[in-house]
Amino acid sequence: MKSFLDLAALGPEEVADLLSLAVRLERSPEPEALKGKILALLFFNPSLRTLASFQAGMARLGGSAFVISPGQGTWILETRDGVVMDGTAAEHVREAIPVLASYADALGIRSFAGGADLAADLADSTFLSMAKVCPVPLINLESAVDHPCQALGDWKTMDDLGVPARGGRFVLSWAWHPKPLPLAVPAAVVHMAAQRGMDVTLLRPEGFGLPEPILARARRAAETSGGSLRETADRREALEGAHVIYAKSWASPVHYGNAEAEAAFRASLRDWCVGEDWFATTAPDCRFMHCLPVRRNVVVKDAVLDGPRSVVVHEARNRMWAQMAVLHRLLRKQGEER
Amino acid sequence: MKSFLDLAALGPEEVADLLSLAVRLERSPEPEALKGKILALLFFNPSLRTLASFQAGMARLGGSAFVISPGQGTWILETRDGVVMDGTAAEHVREAIPVLASYADALGIRSFAGGADLAADLADSTFLSMAKVCPVPLINLESAVDHPCQALGDWKTMDDLGVPARGGRFVLSWAWHPKPLPLAVPAAVVHMAAQRGMDVTLLRPEGFGLPEPILARARRAAETSGGSLRETADRREALEGAHVIYAKSWASPVHYGNAEAEAAFRASLRDWCVGEDWFATTAPDCRFMHCLPVRRNVVVKDAVLDGPRSVVVHEARNRMWAQMAVLHRLLRKQGEER
Amino acid sequence: MKSFLDLAALGPEEVADLLSLAVRLERSPEPEALKGKILALLFFNPSLRTLASFQAGMARLGGSAFVISPGQGTWILETRDGVVMDGTAAEHVREAIPVLASYADALGIRSFAGGADLAADLADSTFLSMAKVCPVPLINLESAVDHPCQALGDWKTMDDLGVPARGGRFVLSWAWHPKPLPLAVPAAVVHMAAQRGMDVTLLRPEGFGLPEPILARARRAAETSGGSLRETADRREALEGAHVIYAKSWASPVHYGNAEAEAAFRASLRDWCVGEDWFATTAPDCRFMHCLPVRRNVVVKDAVLDGPRSVVVHEARNRMWAQMAVLHRLLRKQGEER
Repeated sequence: MKSFLDLAALGPEEVADLLSLAVRLERSPEPEALKGKILALLFFNPSLRTLASFQAGMARLGGSAFVISPGQGTWILETRDGVVMDGTAAEHVREAIPVLASYADALGIRSFAGGADLAADLADSTFLSMAKVCPVPLINLESAVDHPCQALGDWKTMDDLGVPARGGRFVLSWAWHPKPLPLAVPAAVVHMAAQRGMDVTLLRPEGFGLPEPILARARRAAETSGGSLRETADRREALEGAHVIYAKSWASPVHYGNAEAEAAFRASLRDWCVGEDWFATTAPDCRFMHCLPVRRNVVVKDAVLDGPRSVVVHEARNRMWAQMAVLHRLLRKQGEER
Repeated sequence: MKSFLDLAALGPEEVADLLSLAVRLERSPEPEALKGKILALLFFNPSLRTLASFQAGMARLGGSAFVISPGQGTWILETRDGVVMDGTAAEHVREAIPVLASYADALGIRSFAGGADLAADLADSTFLSMAKVCPVPLINLESAVDHPCQALGDWKTMDDLGVPARGGRFVLSWAWHPKPLPLAVPAAVVHMAAQRGMDVTLLRPEGFGLPEPILARARRAAETSGGSLRETADRREALEGAHVIYAKSWASPVHYGNAEAEAAFRASLRDWCVGEDWFATTAPDCRFMHCLPVRRNVVVKDAVLDGPRSVVVHEARNRMWAQMAVLHRLLRKQGEER
Repeated sequence: MKSFLDLAALGPEEVADLLSLAVRLERSPEPEALKGKILALLFFNPSLRTLASFQAGMARLGGSAFVISPGQGTWILETRDGVVMDGTAAEHVREAIPVLASYADALGIRSFAGGADLAADLADSTFLSMAKVCPVPLINLESAVDHPCQALGDWKTMDDLGVPARGGRFVLSWAWHPKPLPLAVPAAVVHMAAQRGMDVTLLRPEGFGLPEPILARARRAAETSGGSLRETADRREALEGAHVIYAKSWASPVHYGNAEAEAAFRASLRDWCVGEDWFATTAPDCRFMHCLPVRRNVVVKDAVLDGPRSVVVHEARNRMWAQMAVLHRLLRKQGEER
C-alpha cells in the first residue's frame, strides 16, 4: 500500500490486514512504531475527529503531526490549474503540496466537494489533482466523494459489535439537514457495506437517490462480495430486520449546485429525523450509526443518540485505531515488523 | 484525585502535595513521566498562557497535546440540552466530548461565563454539563466562575516569594476595563487566598462587590484555615501593610447581562488603574499580581508592571509547573512513582 | 551564537558552520539531539513553510514546538510602548514574550513590516523592541526588513546545485503583484548573495529600486566577500550569463505607505512576470528561485515553475535543514556534541 485514497481500491486481504492491525494496536500499544516519523495534515475544511484522531494516533505510535489550514494562519491556496493568480489565493497547491511533503513522511488532505458541479465532484477532480503532485504517501481525509478512513473505522465498529457481514442488513438512510451536504460519506459507506458483503438498503425520499456512478460501483462491490444493494423510499420495508441504520444527509443530485431550488425541494422532509418510532416493531435491536458531526433533533432524535442503540462514539474512536493501522502500513518499512 | 475542577474541593494535604510536586518538577525534570500520554485541549475562548503552558508542560513530561477550538478549523459546538440543532452549531458537546476523550488520556476544557444570566454563571452550569459527559480525567481551564490552575499557580508564586500564609495580607482589587469581564479569576483567587489562611481584603467600588455565594464560600474557607475576609471601597485602608495586591476587573453584578447599563455604571471609574501612588506610604514592599492578559495603563500603569513589585511573569511561569503537577497526579498510575 | 536575528551579523566561519551542519543533518538524522527541548513560535502573520518546517524540524531533532497566532485563538497583542490599552489588544508583548519564553527553550517571532512608515520599517523597530524583552534565544521568522532563515536556506540551495560563489551571477528581479509587498525577502536575499561573494544584479523598473540603506549594506558585504552589486532596468543586460534569477515583488519605496498611489504606479508593469522568453538566448541554464508563496502567471509563468529551471521546492525544503542547524547551535549545550 503506497497511499490510502479509497477503500474500494483494496482487496479483501488488504482490508482484513488493516482491520486486524487496528485491533492489535487497540489492544497492544506500539509507542515506538513510528518514532521520528512526521505526518503533515492539510485541512481545506473543518474537522474534529480527523483533526484530533490523526494527531493522537501519530503520538500513540511515537511520531508527530502538524496541521495546516489554508486561510487560518496560512495562505489561501489555489487548486485550479492554469489560472492567473491575481485574486485571494497567494499560493498554488502545485507548490504547497510538494513543499509540505518535503517536511513530512506522509501527507493527509481534506478537501470537500465544491458542491456546484456534480460531474466534477463525482470525478473527485480537485483531490486527484492534488494527489498527482504529492511525492509521499497520501491519505484521503475526505474528498468530494470519498472518506475511506470513515469507511474503514465503521467496518471495524461492525466487526467489534458482531454485526454479520454475509446476511447482515445495513440501511443507509437519508436525513433532513438545513444545508445541502456532500456525497462523500454516503458514497463511502454504501460501498463499504457492500464490500463487506452485507445486504444494503438505500432508504431515501424520491429525488435523493445517490448518483448512478456511486450506485453502480457499490453494486459491483456487492456482486463480488456476495452482498446486495436495493433502493427504497419506504421506511418500514427498509428497516425490517435491519442490523444497522446509518443516517446521513446529502444534497439532492436533482438540484445539485442550485442551493435555492435544493432547499425548496428539501423543505417538506423535516420528518426524515431518525426517532425511536422508526425501530419499534421491525428492528428492535437495530444499531444506530452516524459519522458525526450530527445535528440533534434534526438528523436524529435525542432519545436515539442517548439510548443504547447508538454506537456513534464507538465509531469515532475506531477512526483512530483504523487510521493508526493505515499509518503503520504506510510508514513502517518492511522488515521493521516485530 | 480523579479530575481537577476546583481548587476549593481539595484538602490542605492535597494542595500541599501538588505544590511540592510542582516545585520538584521545576527543579528536577521528569522527561519520561507521561511518556505516551495524550492531553486533549478544548478551547471555547481565547487563551495564551493556558494554551502554551499545557502544551509545553505535556512535552516536558514526555507526553503530547492537541488543541481543538470550536469555530476555528472545527465545528461550532452546541452546549444546551434538548435543542433542535438547525442553527450554526453542527455538533453537540454530548458527542464531541466523549469523542475527544476517546483519543486522549485526559481532557482540558475552557468555557467562559455566558455573561447574561448571573445565576446560571454562578452555578457553572455549562461547564458542569460538559464535565458530566466526560469519561476521562478533566481539567478546568477556566469556567464561568472558576480557574483552579490560575489559583494553584498563584499559590505557588506566593510560596516562592515568601509571602506569609497566616498573617499574610492579600488585597484583591477591582480595576477599570473597557469590557465587563467574567468572575472566574476573582472568585478563584479570593478563595485561594482565604484557603491559604491569609487576611483577605476585597477592594472595590460600590456596586462591584462579588456575588454573595462567592463571598460566602471564601468566608468559610477563611474560617477553616484561620484567615479572614473583609470588603472595602477605601484604597488606603485596604493597602495598609498589604503583602500583595492582586488586580483584576470584573463586571458589576448589579447590572449583570446588561452591557449598556454596566458600561454607564463603570464609566466614572477609570481612576481604578493601579499606580505607584497606591503604595507610597502604606505598602512600599507590596507585590503586584495579575493573572494576565492585562491592559497597560488601563488596569495598571506601566511603572508598576515594569517595576520591581510586579511578579506577573513569575505567576505565568508557575502556571506550567502547577499544571504539570496536576497532570502528573491525574495521569501517572499509582506505583509508577520513582 | 545566542540568537538568530540576521544572517548579515554572522562571519564566514559561522555561516560555513551552519551550512555544513545543515548538510550533516540532512544526511544523518539526529533524532535525540534536542530531546525535551521546546520551541515557541509566535506568528503575527500568515505562514506555510515557516510554520510547517519549524514544527517538523523540532520533531526531527526529538524536540517539540507550539504555535501562538495573535487573534486566532489567542489575544490580540499590542506592540507599541506607552499606549493606553483600551482598544482591541488585550495584552502587550512586554508580558506575552517573556511569558512564552518562560515555557520554552527558544522563541521564534514573525512580524511583517507595518508598510506605512518606511523609516520605521527599515529600522525594524517593532521586531527589535520584541527582541529586547525576550530572555531566551530568539529566531527571526521574518521581520520588516529581514528573513535570515530564508537567506540561509537559499545559500544552501545554491551550494547544493553547484552555483558558483565567486563569479556566480545572481539576479534579483522585481516582479508584478496585486499588492505592495514587504522588503524583507529582497533585502535578505540581495545581502546573502553579496555575502556569498556573488556578482549581484538588481533588476527592477524605475521607481522600484531598494532603499539606499539596504543597498549600502549589501555593497559593503560585496566588498568584503569579493562580490559586486549593480542595478539596472534592462532585462537582457541583467540576465546575460546569469546563474540564478531570484524573482520577488516588493512595494515601491517612492510611494511607500500610500496604497492608492503605489497601485497606480505599479499598474503598467504587469509584464514583469518571469517567462521562458526571459532566458532564451542569454541565460539558457539559469535557475529560477523564489521564496514562495508565489502567484502563478502573475509573478512567474507556469512554464517556468513547472519546468526544469525552477528550484523553488528545493529551496523550501532547505528551509528545514538550515533551521535545524540554527536550532541545534542555539539549543544544544556545548560539550553535548557527539
